[in-house]
This record gives sequence, structure tokens and C-alpha cells, in this order.
Amino acid sequence: MIKVVAKNFVKPEKTDEAVLLLKKLVEETVKEKGCIKYELFVDVKDYSILTIIEEWESQEDLNNHMASEHFKRIVPLLGKLMVKTGEINVYEKI
Amino acid sequence: MIKVVAKNFVKPEKTDEAVLLLKKLVEETVKEKGCIKYELFVDVKDYSILTIIEEWESQEDLNNHMASEHFKRIVPLLGKLMVKTGEINVYEKI
Repeated sequence: MIKVVAKNFVKPEKTDEAVLLLKKLVEETVKEKGCIKYELFVDVKDYSILTIIEEWESQEDLNNHMASEHFKRIVPLLGKLMVKTGEINVYEKI
Repeated sequence: MIKVVAKNFVKPEKTDEAVLLLKKLVEETVKEKGCIKYELFVDVKDYSILTIIEEWESQEDLNNHMASEHFKRIVPLLGKLMVKTGEINVYEKI
């Protein structure tokens, strides 16, 4: 099992727009093969930090996700709403 | 439900020692009231990034965790093994 934490730093005036896009990304991604969890969270102290916490069956499934039509369509749109590059960490449980 | 991501940046030569302490913290914490999940992960590309992903029933349970004997004992020991201050985000699902 692979865990991913993708932390996004959104321009404060663009958080509503970013939430809509991220929810669309969630809606499409949860249908993908190998997707165990793909959930959107907001930092309780800073609403401009929007983080997706993911669980995938394998690295191959994660690779397929990042090559998917919806990922390649939505992620560049999200990029325009960000203050800076996000942090993405891929983890394994120990 | 409250989600917490606690990301630690460990001195590379201290990762084994940090893993032992973090596993002890996990072992004690999963027994706590309101703890749904408390799991330790390592970044697959950088073994000095050790992250705990947590799920708590309520903010009160999280507060009690941070006031617990084992938290107050182990966290300062961990602090000595870090390159820099960790990142802790408390999230709610949206």
C-alpha cells in the first residue's frame, strides 16, 4: 500500500475555485483502479492549505492516476490558483 | 473526525533512533481514547522524512493526546534528532 500526502498552498482569494476543482478531481479519481482512498482536507487554522490524502494499492496504480485524462486536465488548472509549488510526499507504512 | 499530518525531518544519521522512538509513541498512542488511527510512514525517496498520519474522534481527544505522559516524554527526545522543526497540520475533511 502506498500513501500520498499532496499539500497545496492556494491563493487566499482562490480557495473556493480550488475546492471546486479538487472535488472534481476526487470525484473522478475514486473511480480509478487501485484507488483505496482519495480524500480532500482543509487545514483548520489556514483555509488556504488544501491537502489530498491518498491511498493506492501499488505504485503502478499511482502512475496510472497521474497519467489519467482528468489528472492532466485538472492539475494544470489548479496550478494557476497556487501561491507556490505544493508538497507531494509518497510514503510507505513502517 | 480530525486528521493530523505530522511531518518530521530527521538527521540522516539518527533515522534508526527516531524510528524506534516513533514506534514507541505509536504503540502507546493507539491505546488512547478517541484515537482512530495513528500510523507511521517513511518517504520512499527520503528516509529522513518520517510522518505520522493520525485520525482522532475529536479535538478534545487530540488535546488529551498532546497532554499524555508518553507524548510529553517521547516528543522532546525526538526533537533532539531533528534537522529542523517539523510541520504539523490539523485538518478537517471537506
